[in-house]
Amino acid sequence: MANPRTPNPARRNERSRRAVLDAARDLVSELGYAKVTIEAIAARAGVGKQTIYRWWPSKGAVIFDSFLALSEGGEGVRLPDTGDLEADLKMVMRATVAEFADPAFEAPVRALNMEIIGDPTLAAMYGEKLAGPVDEAKKERLRSGRRAGQLAADADLDLVLEVLYAPLYQRWLLRSGPLTPEYADALVETTLRAFRPE
Amino acid sequence: MANPRTPNPARRNERSRRAVLDAARDLVSELGYAKVTIEAIAARAGVGKQTIYRWWPSKGAVIFDSFLALSEGGEGVRLPDTGDLEADLKMVMRATVAEFADPAFEAPVRALNMEIIGDPTLAAMYGEKLAGPVDEAKKERLRSGRRAGQLAADADLDLVLEVLYAPLYQRWLLRSGPLTPEYADALVETTLRAFRPE
Repeated sequence: MANPRTPNPARRNERSRRAVLDAARDLVSELGYAKVTIEAIAARAGVGKQTIYRWWPSKGAVIFDSFLALSEGGEGVRLPDTGDLEADLKMVMRATVAEFADPAFEAPVRALNMEIIGDPTLAAMYGEKLAGPVDEAKKERLRSGRRAGQLAADADLDLVLEVLYAPLYQRWLLRSGPLTPEYADALVETTLRAFRPE
Repeated sequence: MANPRTPNPARRNERSRRAVLDAARDLVSELGYAKVTIEAIAARAGVGKQTIYRWWPSKGAVIFDSFLALSEGGEGVRLPDTGDLEADLKMVMRATVAEFADPAFEAPVRALNMEIIGDPTLAAMYGEKLAGPVDEAKKERLRSGRRAGQLAADADLDLVLEVLYAPLYQRWLLRSGPLTPEYADALVETTLRAFRPE
């Protein structure tokens, strides 16, 4: 155990980094993307502006990292692969539905989505930095299922992902229906029926 | 043909009504729902405020009517029924995809969607006044297809509509892929595969 009197620069840096990311995400929820400034993030996080600029080149970069941190970083994501595609997807979709039903998770994600929907540049950045790597991890699991004969050999994996996730996304955005484990299961079963091998 | 010198109150009313609805929709696109006022709509339409209040009880009511007018009124909608569910849905989905690919249509609808996504009260109003009646018309066509054995007898028609439309909605909102007739067809084929009778 480190002596609490001895300053540990690595730990202090990590604490500051987390404070900045939390502040960025909170401010986007409260104010919307456009009104958040580097100054406001620094003030909320209790760090100097120069600390933020040392680690991130722009406001957009901080905010995107703050959302990456929330989803535990897109690039390291791997879906479970027990060999049973239906069971694995149900586990993942139930977790996703639970996240979107959780106010603490959904509020900042909703704020980010509203910005993305209104701003094509941000949408492209989101696609490249956040959605892209996560979709790639999901497609990796789908490819493994396709090799195992659990999806049609000619299944278009981008379309599979859209059919699996877009109904949840729409239901959440428009608050047009309940977000339940049963709904997660129904989406997986529907998608696998649509893309099963002949 | 009416004498142009003779004022025709019915025609004048209809012209004013349309001017108000066009102004309301344009202003929502330009400013966002929150910033639009009855005064601004009246000024843009070239009518008095009292004209608007004579026909509509509130700003929300005018704006919703302006979007109803765009989709030619939800309640009168009927989907084609040639007996061939796949062909009928492809026709409808191709038309819908073309609308969303049209900047003149999509800009005000995007502005409205951003407001709805951020405001649960507006979302409920949208569901009741706009989406609800249109979805009912679509489900009527699906019921006819289900009776004809083109959909599984136990198909959940709300889920069928979500699987059919949500991928298009998400792709349009996030600009995450092309909106083409081929995409419309793929959504119909995928949905019918997912819900075909055993």
